[in-house]
Amino acid sequence: MSQYETETAVVAEGDGHYRAHVGSNWSIGSNPNGGYLVSIAMRALMAQHPRHPDPLTVTAHYLRPGVPDTDCTIETRIVRTGRQVTSGRATLIQDGKERIEVLAGFGDLTMTSEIDSTLSIPAPEIPDPEQCPQRSADEQGVDLPLLNRLDIRLHPEEARAGTAGRARVSGWIRFLDDTPPDALAAVLFTDAFPPSMFGLLGMIGWVPTLELTVHVRRRPAPGWMKGQLVTHDLADGRMVEDGCLWDSEGNLVAQSRQLGLLLKQ
Amino acid sequence: MSQYETETAVVAEGDGHYRAHVGSNWSIGSNPNGGYLVSIAMRALMAQHPRHPDPLTVTAHYLRPGVPDTDCTIETRIVRTGRQVTSGRATLIQDGKERIEVLAGFGDLTMTSEIDSTLSIPAPEIPDPEQCPQRSADEQGVDLPLLNRLDIRLHPEEARAGTAGRARVSGWIRFLDDTPPDALAAVLFTDAFPPSMFGLLGMIGWVPTLELTVHVRRRPAPGWMKGQLVTHDLADGRMVEDGCLWDSEGNLVAQSRQLGLLLKQ
Repeated sequence: MSQYETETAVVAEGDGHYRAHVGSNWSIGSNPNGGYLVSIAMRALMAQHPRHPDPLTVTAHYLRPGVPDTDCTIETRIVRTGRQVTSGRATLIQDGKERIEVLAGFGDLTMTSEIDSTLSIPAPEIPDPEQCPQRSADEQGVDLPLLNRLDIRLHPEEARAGTAGRARVSGWIRFLDDTPPDALAAVLFTDAFPPSMFGLLGMIGWVPTLELTVHVRRRPAPGWMKGQLVTHDLADGRMVEDGCLWDSEGNLVAQSRQLGLLLKQ
Repeated sequence: MSQYETETAVVAEGDGHYRAHVGSNWSIGSNPNGGYLVSIAMRALMAQHPRHPDPLTVTAHYLRPGVPDTDCTIETRIVRTGRQVTSGRATLIQDGKERIEVLAGFGDLTMTSEIDSTLSIPAPEIPDPEQCPQRSADEQGVDLPLLNRLDIRLHPEEARAGTAGRARVSGWIRFLDDTPPDALAAVLFTDAFPPSMFGLLGMIGWVPTLELTVHVRRRPAPGWMKGQLVTHDLADGRMVEDGCLWDSEGNLVAQSRQLGLLLKQ
């Protein structure tokens, strides 16, 4: 089993309840990465409907920071199982407090359609991973235990806060243990890049996510995934950030959008 | 009270449960519009936290079509109330079956921030409402009782299915009874335009929405709202459609994204 599988594994306790352990190697500063907590909640939902193995749409509300190296419970409910889609919700709880609330729809990404029209978003050109510096703990101003699990490389022109001159961050991402990415990993990866606002405004401290929605569009090919996140919309300290992920074959794997808060440092 | 308020009104029954009536004047064909059902569920959530009157982020999973002219119950749970945001979920049920599942975050859109940077998405130029034909029942191939409540005008070059040559629809929208739009109306309006895929592929029948997320960015000014929806991403019959709404002063009011299915006719 990969580190990702092992450290997001859940144990069924009956009645849609699950137990898991929130590890300490997926954190940004002292908070477990949101996408990591979502992954645990998703494992609990995905254990219940093998016919629909892939997340198609995942929405998470980040209610409170999680607690690393601490157990959690996940309360789930499958709200509908249809022919093409299963929908369910999950609440991840630690120390008696709700940490994240998830609403997700699952399907089978290998299922094709009689509609053969295709539209896609092309992958941007960015330098090869070897030319891209690693996401750096120093640059972010906090420790990044997450870098024990994920290899994150940033476009050289966007890697240092405040130098890009625009709210955009691009780069590469993969599991450090070389696990090939799957559809669930795409959900994790979209939430693992630094905030795109750093490129425009410089170091602006913690940028809490209120809500994240990821649409997974295909199962990724093995290898590095390429990501790009952009903020087009910032008003009254609330921003909407859009992201895309492409696999090593250049195919669009996921789109993400999050509502985040900018806090004055 | 406006038609919208009257026909989305809810009655508390205790323990987070509400009762309402799904009217027959907000339908597309024989199905109540998804945004209308979401509005009813949102009323039930909004009755519970007056400190956070505005929807900031709304995600709905469309589980089954609703039933017009039939009562419904809404089961809600507020999962967290914080200083800036309240999050809650709601399930709208008719005839014993879940119809939509909602997860929403609420706040106060008049709350400003010490962050005075702003980024926004400019409104597109489109002809004045008087130059734009009404959304037409004939064009859609189904009756549109929704047009008893909403005045929807489409860009003349995008009003007829299959003629735009691209997956985009733009236009204007307002309540027929001249009620000024509010933040909740923005959620309704984003789901009231015809599918943007009609512009590219022509009449392709019912395009069921699996999931819709709307981010409301400000309370709208009175008057017409302008909308534009675009699909950049269609694969295996599943599409991600992005939308924006602007108010009569040209300010961005909402962004929306939905995951929809194209079904072969």
